Amino acid sequence: MKRGLSAVLLLAVLTPPAGRADPAGALSARVRSWRAAHEVEILRELAQLVSIPNVASDTQNIRRNADAIVALFARRSIAARLLESPGAPPVVFASLPAPGARRTVVFYAHYDGQPVDPARWTGKPWEPVLRDRAVESGGREVPWPSPSAPIDPQSLLYARSASDDKAPIVGLLVALDALRAAGVSPTVNLEFFFEGEEEAGSPHLAQILRDNAALLAADLWLFCDGPVHQSGRKLVFFGSRGITGVELTAYGAVRRLHSGHYGNWSPNPALELARLVASMRDDEGNILIPGFSDDVRPPTETELRAVADAPDVDESLRRELRLARTERNGKRIEQSVLLPALNVRGLSAGDVGERATNSIPTEASASIDFRLVPDQTPEKVRAKVEEHLRRQGWFLVRTAPDDATRLAHPRVLRVEWGSGYPSSRISMDLPVSRAVVRVLSDATGAPVVRLPTLGGSIPNYLFAEILKTPVIGVPIANHDNNQHAANENLRIQNLWDGIEMFAALMTGLGTF
Amino acid sequence: MKRGLSAVLLLAVLTPPAGRADPAGALSARVRSWRAAHEVEILRELAQLVSIPNVASDTQNIRRNADAIVALFARRSIAARLLESPGAPPVVFASLPAPGARRTVVFYAHYDGQPVDPARWTGKPWEPVLRDRAVESGGREVPWPSPSAPIDPQSLLYARSASDDKAPIVGLLVALDALRAAGVSPTVNLEFFFEGEEEAGSPHLAQILRDNAALLAADLWLFCDGPVHQSGRKLVFFGSRGITGVELTAYGAVRRLHSGHYGNWSPNPALELARLVASMRDDEGNILIPGFSDDVRPPTETELRAVADAPDVDESLRRELRLARTERNGKRIEQSVLLPALNVRGLSAGDVGERATNSIPTEASASIDFRLVPDQTPEKVRAKVEEHLRRQGWFLVRTAPDDATRLAHPRVLRVEWGSGYPSSRISMDLPVSRAVVRVLSDATGAPVVRLPTLGGSIPNYLFAEILKTPVIGVPIANHDNNQHAANENLRIQNLWDGIEMFAALMTGLGTF
Repeated sequence: MKRGLSAVLLLAVLTPPAGRADPAGALSARVRSWRAAHEVEILRELAQLVSIPNVASDTQNIRRNADAIVALFARRSIAARLLESPGAPPVVFASLPAPGARRTVVFYAHYDGQPVDPARWTGKPWEPVLRDRAVESGGREVPWPSPSAPIDPQSLLYARSASDDKAPIVGLLVALDALRAAGVSPTVNLEFFFEGEEEAGSPHLAQILRDNAALLAADLWLFCDGPVHQSGRKLVFFGSRGITGVELTAYGAVRRLHSGHYGNWSPNPALELARLVASMRDDEGNILIPGFSDDVRPPTETELRAVADAPDVDESLRRELRLARTERNGKRIEQSVLLPALNVRGLSAGDVGERATNSIPTEASASIDFRLVPDQTPEKVRAKVEEHLRRQGWFLVRTAPDDATRLAHPRVLRVEWGSGYPSSRISMDLPVSRAVVRVLSDATGAPVVRLPTLGGSIPNYLFAEILKTPVIGVPIANHDNNQHAANENLRIQNLWDGIEMFAALMTGLGTF
Repeated sequence: MKRGLSAVLLLAVLTPPAGRADPAGALSARVRSWRAAHEVEILRELAQLVSIPNVASDTQNIRRNADAIVALFARRSIAARLLESPGAPPVVFASLPAPGARRTVVFYAHYDGQPVDPARWTGKPWEPVLRDRAVESGGREVPWPSPSAPIDPQSLLYARSASDDKAPIVGLLVALDALRAAGVSPTVNLEFFFEGEEEAGSPHLAQILRDNAALLAADLWLFCDGPVHQSGRKLVFFGSRGITGVELTAYGAVRRLHSGHYGNWSPNPALELARLVASMRDDEGNILIPGFSDDVRPPTETELRAVADAPDVDESLRRELRLARTERNGKRIEQSVLLPALNVRGLSAGDVGERATNSIPTEASASIDFRLVPDQTPEKVRAKVEEHLRRQGWFLVRTAPDDATRLAHPRVLRVEWGSGYPSSRISMDLPVSRAVVRVLSDATGAPVVRLPTLGGSIPNYLFAEILKTPVIGVPIANHDNNQHAANENLRIQNLWDGIEMFAALMTGLGTF
């Protein structure tokens, strides 16, 4: 009963969905009361999962995560399996057919997390703690809940991947629990696909999708990743920006030189790199690399309207983040992420502050990520970037330069690209797009925010390219979750809401 | 018998010095043979001294250094004392009058060292080891010498301050030993002044000189600091560049933001700081800050001629350092350091490489040092720099900005100046200048390199301003000593040569 993208498009001309036996609001209430009776167990399940270190390159621990998730399924009598590809963290896959269902929906999440710098964390990345408020607002650790002590839904669970992206994994399983307890059956065949290398750029995902194309054929993939809208309203997104990242390293003399005796005779790589970085982007976010934006396809009318309809959060966000200005000459955030972007993730050269010495750094590094929009591709963008670097006078190498290379070229730059992928979006006018929006609006009793694209990047293009299946994003995490940074956290209420959202999607999408 | 600067100038009209009883070459040979018989003990004395951690801010250890030096004097029956100033590392001071001498010469050195980053060292900063060659050339640790195993004079002693600046302290004391053994008396009153906060910018030196002006009155200060010429020839310098340093920190949002969801809406402080740094200096070393070089006094004819006479080491230095180009459009290094300079000591923002995350850094820092030439002053230079920073759109603060400041100003920059001081030079045509050059040329049997200024900075201006006494630099360290960086080292032959130099100066300057 699995259908490809063409079948979905065919459905576009069909009539709107029939009503359901159990109105969305009533189901949500039943899910809620089940959850309220099981909060401590739910939280314990999530806390145990986020206690396992989960950087994709940490082979041993990443497998412990996969095994733990298989065990979570097993506890619910669902036989999950691992989809393997050489050198890749396994995908945890599980299938739950719904008798008589005509559609198959796959829920995607990922169990790996961004690298951590433990020194920047108030606690420890993989030792979850509950806090009454955000650490930035003086939040304090609160005791772990017991059945007798209710959980404050505004409290926050601190741990790497508490929100990005283990909360949806637990949320989906708990939604199943709540539906079973309520005696309500899913109206679509459910599948679960939990990836283990999303934060590393999903280098093996394409291979895994190709190897398992028959198994993974479906009518819709729901991406349970990313935060809800900053207004607090539920968010549905129909695409994401693409991404590619690069590490640039400039070289000076082979040893640190006294900055008095050798400055400014021996070139200063920190200064040269600063100039190079500054040549790539202006302070408003405009990318100055010639040709970088050549392939950009402008947003559609529907997309621009959806963005305009979203609650305007710029002012409150600026205050929250203590910003006196924003880039793009004050364009709204939802508009800004419709454009390609260049972000400096890091700079490093010599030492600063107390550790600074009066010496010339031997090398200087910049880490940059590019966010891409339709129809940019990482390949073309990389070529344009390298053309720009060369035009700035740099000789490009892929590994640390040897003596001969250093002596032959006045400006040597090591350029190391990470993996990347293009942007992808589906139309907001597809029936499946409308169905998801309707189900969530009904379930929450309020209009959801619809955005053409997530500012962030998820590998949804692969599902369009390889599986010919539409991808729609249904995030649950709080927006102020410190995702990708130290002190990542999840607001407990977001998990509670997520459980209801997932239950609604599992039971409300039968007839899109 | 102490004289001020005016007395020295008066001497300019006197006749050249009379010959000495013991010709310079013969004395050097006697010092050399004494040293050859005592190498192991000499090296042990230096090794013990460099085993004591010596960052100026490390109050406890810095005092252990001072006490150890007092003990080195005591071992030679010389009563050294500590000159104290509140909050300052003590100066170790010792006096050795020469019966009948008409001149007083003070030997200056410093016993503190630059901060260390132990992770960058091949060994440990304060655990001295001998290596057969430089670590960069694959040098290996060699056994500590014993009386039966001769020391390879090309071997290197690795430790913080092995060359900068504890080697001269031991070298001076050993020169005294050798003279005593040879039965040769110094021809000038000798004084020793060993500072403990030179690498921290000598913030209390002026006060100490003022407090002890009578005690410290002399005819000449000899600065035993810095490296010899890169050609390996002995070097005499007649001034140094001034210095002032600054830490700049730019601010973004108060927490790390996902670079996809918030880029480029939330400003990127790393990029803004890179642009700011690039605005201050071009890739040839020219400072772009308006008015920065207004007060620069051009070098004299004598100075330019001396520079031209120095062996041209650019080509061999470039090869040694694997540089395909140098700044200042290829000006020779001795010419480049006649100009003011801006050096980026370090850059820091977010993370690079393996630790990079797709997030926007919350702040970005640059550490910069400025080298000044006559007649620039730190005060005027700082004002010009700040004027430039403001003109680039930055609001300057002195401490981390509070929320109200962040919300009120689009670009907030923390500006923290370190201490600093101006450049100072004396004329190379003074009799005392000529006398020092002559003594060293005679002692080594080869012309010495004369340079108007050291590229680096030493607080010689204070001696001119407060004590009205000329300062001349007589360095002994190898040029490739990794001074101020990790793996600082001293070539043993440089210590041996230094001992002979110091003995020659102690006995050859009686009649300048």
